[in-house]
Amino acid sequence: MKQDMPIERLDYLPGLKRQIYQRSDIFSYSMDAVLLAKFVTLSKRKDQRIIDLCTGTGAVPLLMSLRTPSSIDAVEIQPVLAKLSIKSMRHNNIHNQVNVIEADIRQLQKTVTYGSYHIVTCNPPYFPVTAEKGKNMNEHLSIARHEVLCTLEDVIKAASKLLMAKGIMALVHRPERLVEIVTIMKQYQLEPKRLQYVHPNKNKEANMVLIEAVKEGRPSIKVLPPWIVYGEDHTYTKEFKKHYE
Amino acid sequence: MKQDMPIERLDYLPGLKRQIYQRSDIFSYSMDAVLLAKFVTLSKRKDQRIIDLCTGTGAVPLLMSLRTPSSIDAVEIQPVLAKLSIKSMRHNNIHNQVNVIEADIRQLQKTVTYGSYHIVTCNPPYFPVTAEKGKNMNEHLSIARHEVLCTLEDVIKAASKLLMAKGIMALVHRPERLVEIVTIMKQYQLEPKRLQYVHPNKNKEANMVLIEAVKEGRPSIKVLPPWIVYGEDHTYTKEFKKHYE
Repeated sequence: MKQDMPIERLDYLPGLKRQIYQRSDIFSYSMDAVLLAKFVTLSKRKDQRIIDLCTGTGAVPLLMSLRTPSSIDAVEIQPVLAKLSIKSMRHNNIHNQVNVIEADIRQLQKTVTYGSYHIVTCNPPYFPVTAEKGKNMNEHLSIARHEVLCTLEDVIKAASKLLMAKGIMALVHRPERLVEIVTIMKQYQLEPKRLQYVHPNKNKEANMVLIEAVKEGRPSIKVLPPWIVYGEDHTYTKEFKKHYE
Repeated sequence: MKQDMPIERLDYLPGLKRQIYQRSDIFSYSMDAVLLAKFVTLSKRKDQRIIDLCTGTGAVPLLMSLRTPSSIDAVEIQPVLAKLSIKSMRHNNIHNQVNVIEADIRQLQKTVTYGSYHIVTCNPPYFPVTAEKGKNMNEHLSIARHEVLCTLEDVIKAASKLLMAKGIMALVHRPERLVEIVTIMKQYQLEPKRLQYVHPNKNKEANMVLIEAVKEGRPSIKVLPPWIVYGEDHTYTKEFKKHYE
């Protein structure tokens, strides 16, 4: 077997109700995507229009499809990841519900209708592009993790364009960028309404933030109970397990 | 004894190292002030200049004096509360360290030097003035709780003027106003750097937020471990007790 042969895997997502195709050499889903799919406000309505940006291998729509019967568009710029997503939707028999679109989120007017979505979700690249960072990564991983092809502002701008008035954007990101997230959201008429932090344990700083904003919403935000991942025995806490598994 | 006689009390602050004069009919310190005095970044240096705005009966400077040998100015607009503060500083024998100033924080240039402080703390009135709210309150309590004489912007603007470059502002407020706080801070060159939330218990939304900003600081914020007040047995959690008592 050649060392550089692409290694495609079929993995279970937490909860074991969905399987996902991944490539260990390119990109694997993270806890962040799973928590975003749990965090976002979804209804049982069939007629909502939902779109997931920077979908990667599709973990967020795969899990959201368990919570809503509405159709979901899923946008990914990297062809190899978009193809894996399509394969996963077929494998889980939800290819009629989840429509994978290979596109650049900065150019979506060619593909979808602005102002027509109820919900936008996004687990974007977290890290600004710097000279040092990402140097030793492969290109696919670098695009997924660094703001090479899509900055925080690109994501929020796209969401604001896609959403109808009172539509919601749910985003997962790093807490250190919270002020920037909130500032840019306000700039694009997205009013932050729900915040939730994830702490590795109860004595550690947050290492993830989930934020939901309403387009043209009334200012006032709720800070939900924190998600504490590990207990003193270094296993998942009872509360976290309930949401994550 | 006449019913309308003012009822002055001498109470212990948590930790039992400081006592505070209060009037049950006007104003009593809250947990918020205590947590602010614990949260703010203080050093052991003697030469820092610290100022507490909206000091009320002086709970914040009373407690900060246990953590720093530096001198503290404490500003209160209501004469009756300023007088109680002075009495408390004398009673605790820290009237040489804590200087109570009866003044309007919007007009401090008459009393103190702008740009000269290392640290500003503030536990301001939380609630916007509305027609319904505060109607049935006495005037003193209404001023302390509602933005009658001092809005969120007044407080942040005053802090920004008082601080030198890289000086810090520590504020306690209601989480629902977080976005507004952050937005106004940015507007006045105060960069939020540390955030901490207080939740009544681990399953409830935050009901208090502590935020520290650095004047002309570099953008990047830390979200500290949450303070969870009550455990499942409805008594203070071990972690909270450690900070609060």
